[in-house]
Amino acid sequence: MEFTHLDKQGKAKMVDVGDKNITTRTAFATGKIILPVKIMKAILDNSVPKGDVFSVARVAGIMGAKNTSSMIPMCHPLLINSCSVDFNIDEKNSLIKVKCTVNVDGKTGVEMEALTGVSVALLTIYDMCKGIDKGMVITDILLEKKTGGKSGIYERGK
Amino acid sequence: MEFTHLDKQGKAKMVDVGDKNITTRTAFATGKIILPVKIMKAILDNSVPKGDVFSVARVAGIMGAKNTSSMIPMCHPLLINSCSVDFNIDEKNSLIKVKCTVNVDGKTGVEMEALTGVSVALLTIYDMCKGIDKGMVITDILLEKKTGGKSGIYERGK
Amino acid sequence: MEFTHLDKQGKAKMVDVGDKNITTRTAFATGKIILPVKIMKAILDNSVPKGDVFSVARVAGIMGAKNTSSMIPMCHPLLINSCSVDFNIDEKNSLIKVKCTVNVDGKTGVEMEALTGVSVALLTIYDMCKGIDKGMVITDILLEKKTGGKSGIYERGK
Amino acid sequence: MEFTHLDKQGKAKMVDVGDKNITTRTAFATGKIILPVKIMKAILDNSVPKGDVFSVARVAGIMGAKNTSSMIPMCHPLLINSCSVDFNIDEKNSLIKVKCTVNVDGKTGVEMEALTGVSVALLTIYDMCKGIDKGMVITDILLEKKTGGKSGIYERGK
Amino acid sequence: MEFTHLDKQGKAKMVDVGDKNITTRTAFATGKIILPVKIMKAILDNSVPKGDVFSVARVAGIMGAKNTSSMIPMCHPLLINSCSVDFNIDEKNSLIKVKCTVNVDGKTGVEMEALTGVSVALLTIYDMCKGIDKGMVITDILLEKKTGGKSGIYERGK
Amino acid sequence: MEFTHLDKQGKAKMVDVGDKNITTRTAFATGKIILPVKIMKAILDNSVPKGDVFSVARVAGIMGAKNTSSMIPMCHPLLINSCSVDFNIDEKNSLIKVKCTVNVDGKTGVEMEALTGVSVALLTIYDMCKGIDKGMVITDILLEKKTGGKSGIYERGK
Repeated sequence: MEFTHLDKQGKAKMVDVGDKNITTRTAFATGKIILPVKIMKAILDNSVPKGDVFSVARVAGIMGAKNTSSMIPMCHPLLINSCSVDFNIDEKNSLIKVKCTVNVDGKTGVEMEALTGVSVALLTIYDMCKGIDKGMVITDILLEKKTGGKSGIYERGK
Repeated sequence: MEFTHLDKQGKAKMVDVGDKNITTRTAFATGKIILPVKIMKAILDNSVPKGDVFSVARVAGIMGAKNTSSMIPMCHPLLINSCSVDFNIDEKNSLIKVKCTVNVDGKTGVEMEALTGVSVALLTIYDMCKGIDKGMVITDILLEKKTGGKSGIYERGK
Repeated sequence: MEFTHLDKQGKAKMVDVGDKNITTRTAFATGKIILPVKIMKAILDNSVPKGDVFSVARVAGIMGAKNTSSMIPMCHPLLINSCSVDFNIDEKNSLIKVKCTVNVDGKTGVEMEALTGVSVALLTIYDMCKGIDKGMVITDILLEKKTGGKSGIYERGK
Repeated sequence: MEFTHLDKQGKAKMVDVGDKNITTRTAFATGKIILPVKIMKAILDNSVPKGDVFSVARVAGIMGAKNTSSMIPMCHPLLINSCSVDFNIDEKNSLIKVKCTVNVDGKTGVEMEALTGVSVALLTIYDMCKGIDKGMVITDILLEKKTGGKSGIYERGK
Repeated sequence: MEFTHLDKQGKAKMVDVGDKNITTRTAFATGKIILPVKIMKAILDNSVPKGDVFSVARVAGIMGAKNTSSMIPMCHPLLINSCSVDFNIDEKNSLIKVKCTVNVDGKTGVEMEALTGVSVALLTIYDMCKGIDKGMVITDILLEKKTGGKSGIYERGK
Repeated sequence: MEFTHLDKQGKAKMVDVGDKNITTRTAFATGKIILPVKIMKAILDNSVPKGDVFSVARVAGIMGAKNTSSMIPMCHPLLINSCSVDFNIDEKNSLIKVKCTVNVDGKTGVEMEALTGVSVALLTIYDMCKGIDKGMVITDILLEKKTGGKSGIYERGK
């Protein structure tokens, strides 16, 4: 039970991954943004042009995932092999779900990259839609699954 | 009812703020991270050093807020006057609440800066604690209040 | 006839814009990428999915324009008011034309921002299509028009 | 015949290079900037100091090449082994030719790095000379050669 | 006697400059790098090519000054008007002195920009020369003078 | 006796590390900031809150070390394994000493990363304390030790 990025005195440091093996690691994270009715309507209304909302959020999420180690102070730089960001429109619950998958061959995992990709994509949706209504809520950003590394597979709820 | 960062064909563009006035604008956003019991215990246990968890997250949040226009594709660069990030430990609900306040004299508001500050601070807490348990959930990132600009005051739930 | 970013000894410096007035300035730049037949066919073929090629290039161009002062060593940081990037498919000449418009209220112009937006958008199209054929050629990146500032209007060919 | 950075629905993703081998890869790209007579004269006139024009453009090109994966949305981060940028003054045709060579041991090639290095160097020359005349044209940015990887050697015109 | 970037509890925050006036402010900082004999000889030896050592350090220093608010956590973003970096070779004392001057019209000063410009230029000289000898020492980085703002003129030693 | 980042004509290039082996390399650098009496008093006075001064400087130093290859033009990007930054308050000499240790498995060393980590941490202390007195002096930034690579161990003064 320890904070891996803290030393014995509670001071921050990047945990040393020098002795870890380079293995294939993946992470899959999701998150949601709850939309006020007006925004959901605009997104579903075919007469309102909004083609680029999701494209812009996808690009932002992928670039965000690549930029994780510049944004999160103790994160290690990594050469990710791939990153994808996808969206599901859940009309019934008036929300959009964002999914981000990242993989790498490296000494440490890509959980933070996947979570950052999700977060930046959600923030971008907020930015694209905030002219209509500022009442959106970003929620349920979590790690669904990760594989690889010494600790092996993690799957949420298992 | 329009997507301000889209043109008539649904193509992304930065909305033109050239005709807006430079006024003082503020934004206040919050968010939460729900902690599994093990992490909450470690944070409350005085025998476990963790002094820097919140300091690191605070610095990351402030730097994230300053970096918003590089991260969110259609955001305007802004010269923010100040930014602060604070934390509340809510032991009963096993969560940490993050608050971020930003102000600016500019042609457009700082809602995205405040929301980005909150998001990056929350991701950093996740990163600092993920060695203990990966089951944390980031949730309820929202704009509490903004002032200034043509649309005036927005207050959540009012 | 002088290199404004050089001093008397030929040493680089950022030209001092401290005595200039803050005025509204715009710049409009264009550029082209010549496509081998195979790529043009794929872009025109409705059965091949390529929806995001232009969206990704548009986002990259806008983010590139915003990032100009970090990329071009002597460029001044500027708070741009807006930026848009557009594309024309010229089937006859087998090329795509990119247009970028930027405006600002500032002490110096946005020519470099518009040219950088065009260049990054073109490089992104190259990247998106290079799996098909690497023989693309980026060409004719130039300033079409700029307005504002002491030197007034510049229009290419006039 | 596919867009490697698009999925089956035409949505952008970083192509997965996880199964590729780490091999030595090189890329060599070139580009030109056509100079109005006044600028060419100033560059050739020994009485006008301009020592740093090419040094600044060289540094900008090398830093641009290193920064490629932050600028081009679907590009993979890479640990380049080296990068060089050179210039030829072609007085007869009143142009400057820029050459950029990059090499890497990695899972994917450095074509985009070489093309980005050329583009940023050319934009920097434009910036350094634009006080004299804004009529410069950046042209003929292309990949001359690349080696390494599964697809082997590519040489322009062969 | 207070730490302006700390709140009452000692927590970091960006000091609020919202109520300050936009005035012209300048800062001038210097620093030194002490060179082992071997490096000084190489720099003075006309038969050893080293033309770009100072050009590269100058560009790095200027770009570093522009990038200060991304590097120093509590620094405000600023639109600097100009920046210059210069070098003096002091053969007698076997050192190089770096000078950096920055000016801005803004709500806060550019002391950190000038000091950062000096520091990055010095680090770059170290990097360019470290293949010869790693015993260089960077020293005496200090603010010589600043003007503008409520606190007026500061001049070292006066 | 050569400048490794210069070619035969004295032009800057990134030295080619393609033929070097990936080995474990470490670097340890230190530096100091001399504090006027007023600042030293404030730092030692338990009634003045300043908890975050060192935390902020530590985070800045670590992020600076990770960012070295973007800041120093000819530096190679590297995947550092770890980085730590520490402080000693030397009351007698009225100074703070900063230490930075970095390690990597790579083709080139991390001397510049350690020196950059020290420099950015020192600049951040300056920024945090400059409201009290601007007379601080940053001094004695040097490489104490490095290990790994073909040139083996370097230890200052040995």
